[in-house]
Amino acid sequence: MISYSIEDIVQGILKKNRRILAKAVSLVESTLPEDIAKSQELIDRLLNYSGKSLRIGISGVPGVGKSTFIDAFGLMLLEKNRKLAVLAVDPSSSRSGGSILGDKTRMLSLSQRPDVFIRPSPSSGALGGVARKTRETILLCEAAGFDTILVETVGVGQSETTVASMVDFLLVLMLPNAGDELQGIKRGIMEMGDGFVVNKADGEQIAAANLTARRLENALHFLTPRTKGWNPFVTLCSSLEKKGMEEIEKHIQKFFLDSCRIQERRKAQDSQWMHSLIQESLYNQFYSHPKIFQLLLEKEKEIWDNKKTATKAALELLKVFENTLTAAK
Amino acid sequence: MISYSIEDIVQGILKKNRRILAKAVSLVESTLPEDIAKSQELIDRLLNYSGKSLRIGISGVPGVGKSTFIDAFGLMLLEKNRKLAVLAVDPSSSRSGGSILGDKTRMLSLSQRPDVFIRPSPSSGALGGVARKTRETILLCEAAGFDTILVETVGVGQSETTVASMVDFLLVLMLPNAGDELQGIKRGIMEMGDGFVVNKADGEQIAAANLTARRLENALHFLTPRTKGWNPFVTLCSSLEKKGMEEIEKHIQKFFLDSCRIQERRKAQDSQWMHSLIQESLYNQFYSHPKIFQLLLEKEKEIWDNKKTATKAALELLKVFENTLTAAK
Repeated sequence: MISYSIEDIVQGILKKNRRILAKAVSLVESTLPEDIAKSQELIDRLLNYSGKSLRIGISGVPGVGKSTFIDAFGLMLLEKNRKLAVLAVDPSSSRSGGSILGDKTRMLSLSQRPDVFIRPSPSSGALGGVARKTRETILLCEAAGFDTILVETVGVGQSETTVASMVDFLLVLMLPNAGDELQGIKRGIMEMGDGFVVNKADGEQIAAANLTARRLENALHFLTPRTKGWNPFVTLCSSLEKKGMEEIEKHIQKFFLDSCRIQERRKAQDSQWMHSLIQESLYNQFYSHPKIFQLLLEKEKEIWDNKKTATKAALELLKVFENTLTAAK
Repeated sequence: MISYSIEDIVQGILKKNRRILAKAVSLVESTLPEDIAKSQELIDRLLNYSGKSLRIGISGVPGVGKSTFIDAFGLMLLEKNRKLAVLAVDPSSSRSGGSILGDKTRMLSLSQRPDVFIRPSPSSGALGGVARKTRETILLCEAAGFDTILVETVGVGQSETTVASMVDFLLVLMLPNAGDELQGIKRGIMEMGDGFVVNKADGEQIAAANLTARRLENALHFLTPRTKGWNPFVTLCSSLEKKGMEEIEKHIQKFFLDSCRIQERRKAQDSQWMHSLIQESLYNQFYSHPKIFQLLLEKEKEIWDNKKTATKAALELLKVFENTLTAAK
């Protein structure tokens, strides 16, 4: 799909050529076997130039105003001369190229800044695929000189966990609403956050936002934070009025002061990532095997009808799988 | 290890013979291949007689008083003519037979009741092993006529998740202490609970217990409960003074009124369990392969030194594994 040589792309990225960076990201997102091989080579070549950024995840329920927040927060970062890239992770995404425009219009101010690199979620059914592509895009952006990378969680489901596994810091946005509606927050997300921001703390919602922040602080006492030795902060902001952004940035800077923490986390993430990929591949070999595929529903039904224990069903399926491997000899 | 025939054991269990039940549990816990085959046959024979109990998990940090609580709560259940079995899950357990005595002395009143079946955690390194054995012990107890099964989480780490995956209802015990000390609560446990009990609400701790309960209720507003359509309750008790037990039982009874909920959960748990076993087996085949075992540290180190991406390391290991399978042809 791309006529550039690997060398061209490497040089282009190191020269901070934005058009070539975009091409490289497309290469990483491609599912063609020759592109995958090419992109692995590319990443290898750039690995030494990567790693020098603050990787910040932005999470929160739909409607919390993630895009508006990123727009306001990003502008403030640009004023501090940070070099900003904004990526998105949406495992449910099956969007085409047109979504880039969609994402850009959601971030009105940032999308008009040619120095900001905005990239929507790669479209792919499997979360593993989306995760791989976004992880590699982070490396490419870093090699191209971006020093602050915001990764927005877009979709439903596991996108928070996925984003948490590739960023140094996870910021969770909340609504100024401490009531029952907040139960919409996904499992585990409260424990994943390194910092919490009650957004939309403006106009008539200021009192509610303060109450939410206090209740949130209390709730956090019950939870083990994701990062050892770091107590997640809770603060307020208004993306609309562009208030509170400086304070959030100060908190996050404090987190990044401990460079050992960042290095340790990244190494652990990389190692975990290797094991996830191995596991995903092993599952796929099993579950995509035609014989297993055919038997699986049958076994599930036997379990469902209480005719067979799960243990026995699992042993039977594993036996079938093993036999097909032996038969292939 | 056992001289009884399967038929003897089946009949013994159906006749509620406690000594034979204990033998059957030992069979299920055995790691000898012939015992595993035997125990699978036994479970198969008894499957139709199982399932008719309330499966209740009891969780909480060490020191919260789980054993004392189970002792008091269990006595109250016995007064209501419930037939009670108490099991424990401790993945870190490497205890020998002597621990049965240990568990029994922790539950002073229950251990003196011959009608109560108390069984400590099977000793086994792998959580999957402990989980399988406890799941099968639940089935055996049910076939032997026990209608209430309390499963206590003992160890650290993932034992809560494991217990949650095999019970209908998860009760979380808390300490009367809403402060920072509560951060010791494990990740995810707040979202797993179907009911919360602040234990030790007696003497000078009553005010603190009330405060904890209120804060806990507030914190729960931020979390998605484990069971759809069920709002986890928060209540107080004193295991020492045997107070609050009736109320807890009433709450739990309410939960069990929705029998569809229970059936759906059990079926989903069984199906998930089958997939967990398959995954565990696939991992073991990979990770216990001598070539992989040998290369793994090397690859981990390359990732650690930022010399290789996790993706590449994973692909290389998978290639080696595939080659060993092909070479075996």
